[in-house]
Amino acid sequence: MSIIGKPILYSYWRSSCSWRVRIALHLKEIPYDIKPVSLIKSGGEHHSNEFREINPMEQVPALQIDGVTLVESLNILHYLEETRPQRPLLPHDVVKRAKVREICEVIASGIQPLQNLIVLIHVGEEKKNEWAQHWISRGFRAVEKLLSQSAGKYCVGDDITLADCCLIPQVFNARKFHVDLRPFPIILRIDRELENHPAVRAAHPSNQPDCPPEVTK
Amino acid sequence: MSIIGKPILYSYWRSSCSWRVRIALHLKEIPYDIKPVSLIKSGGEHHSNEFREINPMEQVPALQIDGVTLVESLNILHYLEETRPQRPLLPHDVVKRAKVREICEVIASGIQPLQNLIVLIHVGEEKKNEWAQHWISRGFRAVEKLLSQSAGKYCVGDDITLADCCLIPQVFNARKFHVDLRPFPIILRIDRELENHPAVRAAHPSNQPDCPPEVTK
Repeated sequence: MSIIGKPILYSYWRSSCSWRVRIALHLKEIPYDIKPVSLIKSGGEHHSNEFREINPMEQVPALQIDGVTLVESLNILHYLEETRPQRPLLPHDVVKRAKVREICEVIASGIQPLQNLIVLIHVGEEKKNEWAQHWISRGFRAVEKLLSQSAGKYCVGDDITLADCCLIPQVFNARKFHVDLRPFPIILRIDRELENHPAVRAAHPSNQPDCPPEVTK
Repeated sequence: MSIIGKPILYSYWRSSCSWRVRIALHLKEIPYDIKPVSLIKSGGEHHSNEFREINPMEQVPALQIDGVTLVESLNILHYLEETRPQRPLLPHDVVKRAKVREICEVIASGIQPLQNLIVLIHVGEEKKNEWAQHWISRGFRAVEKLLSQSAGKYCVGDDITLADCCLIPQVFNARKFHVDLRPFPIILRIDRELENHPAVRAAHPSNQPDCPPEVTK
């Protein structure tokens, strides 16, 4: 009966929010197609009239799935979890679930929005690195403290969760802005633990179809 | 058996994130105690060593409940929903749930973090109103568009959901920064619909124990 095809992910190779969703899609082994949306080309394809119909926030990611279009990365992650329970990315225990969501939300509300490209444009070229470093370091101090109470092999216990899907791309961003990561040993350990995981690798910016060839080299 | 008392909400009267949680607690008729945390007094009580142990992000709200401390407002809302299913604030249908979370996340990641007190201090006195207006208007354009597809009497359909818990405090913030709300008729209609709801009123900044008397007048 279904004429609905593979999910389509509107994604930008270097977008950390797109990367969160790509990791989850790979972990859950959900086949999907990518429609690259360049945040650079022609002043940003995410600001086009066409894309504004897909996501009125003019941001990636957006996911077309099951006949609907979903926006906002944590929302998409939760939808995948609710509709594709294979390879669960949230624990069963309600308190552990809360600990996963805490880390996701510190990153998704407390860090990423403040070092987002669109905000840095407003902060200005001169101040942008210092600004990004400040907010990432502040957020990572909190994440490190939360992890000291929740982490096992990964962010919460010994299974990969949505918190890991959010953490790995944020560490990548931290490095992009030359944040000193030495004060965050647990974050660094989890990043090392996951950097060669097949789902994380497949979802990595350098493995995206829209990654410029000079970067993938 | 239980020696666990009433939940304790660490809250600041004017904090929109605290208000989100207060609305949900009142809607679900969960008795709770308030511990006010002044974001103003002595350079901000949320920056004290004592409070940093409660929330390493040095923000309100935090909720002590069921023997654990939870931080991050959307996370707390979801925990209440998972553990106190009375008066549900998320629909059963997975797509409608996603539509609720989309609106929550646009507000919680796309608007509030950028007009947060701690960010405005960094933006500076001179520019802070213009900055806040810019990000609130941008986010509300997206919320209005999402609501044009999802709203009934409230944000998603005809039942109050977590999206409404997030929207009402954000409208309050928008007014504080003199944002022109005329381009957002659906947001304004829902705000009017809910402004006199008993749970919204009880949770309102002006009805908090730490609201200064010159404001409540």
